[in-house]
Amino acid sequence: MDNSVGRLVSILYRKNQVYLNEALKELGLTASELPIIIYVLKHEGVSQEEMAQFLSIDKAAIARAVDTLLEKGLVQKEKDELDRRANKITVTEVGKKIEFALNQRLLYWTQYLTKDIEEKDVDTMYRVLNIMVDKLEHKDCREIWRNHTCQE
Amino acid sequence: MDNSVGRLVSILYRKNQVYLNEALKELGLTASELPIIIYVLKHEGVSQEEMAQFLSIDKAAIARAVDTLLEKGLVQKEKDELDRRANKITVTEVGKKIEFALNQRLLYWTQYLTKDIEEKDVDTMYRVLNIMVDKLEHKDCREIWRNHTCQE
Repeated sequence: MDNSVGRLVSILYRKNQVYLNEALKELGLTASELPIIIYVLKHEGVSQEEMAQFLSIDKAAIARAVDTLLEKGLVQKEKDELDRRANKITVTEVGKKIEFALNQRLLYWTQYLTKDIEEKDVDTMYRVLNIMVDKLEHKDCREIWRNHTCQE
Repeated sequence: MDNSVGRLVSILYRKNQVYLNEALKELGLTASELPIIIYVLKHEGVSQEEMAQFLSIDKAAIARAVDTLLEKGLVQKEKDELDRRANKITVTEVGKKIEFALNQRLLYWTQYLTKDIEEKDVDTMYRVLNIMVDKLEHKDCREIWRNHTCQE
């Protein structure tokens, strides 16, 4: 078995995008807008810069997704009182109404994938994935390769 | 802990893309070209349609990546003798020469992420991820949500 975290995660990610584009269609959303609206739902008043950093999505892609979410009336932008160059993004009342439906679609994917696998093994997988996510959370991943090459 | 396979996989995928873009830079490759060249290395003479289906990447994105790999002299296209509308993609000698360096970069990411985690837990994670990948391999993931809604 060719066990590469990158390979397995990439396959699961792309399959998830196909699923999400279908599952989100009736909510008028795309897979690329999902991480943005989920993040704003959990962090009211976040800036686009913060999202770009936390989600590891480039600023241009964040800006595009925020614009389409604005057009759809799901989020709104306001000037940050403390930093006039920054915007604070919040979810509209319409946006809040789809939160349950979004979570339901994410949950269904998880249930579909983990069905028929022993619960203790699924728990171990979550534990290991969470350790890896935590390890990367505040990391500039470009540095991982740069530091590796320095040590050679 | 908010255990969603989709969420965890998406974070790890995006972090991996940032790492790969850095690690592949000196090889003149981008993260989006990587799955294509890896697939062609393992399946000499594959068609773009097959790749699109197996990798769950849309045909336009496959075509773009194949074009840039052609320009870089890493792959070549030839007409399929049995189906004149299809192309067979193969790796050039130059392409074959970077295979080791590609695998080294994938391996380093895996090593970095799994370091300091108990081996038996990492093995369990691989086993569960592989079960999920197998479950999705020949699946049109749009059907997963469509069938779910039918049952409601």
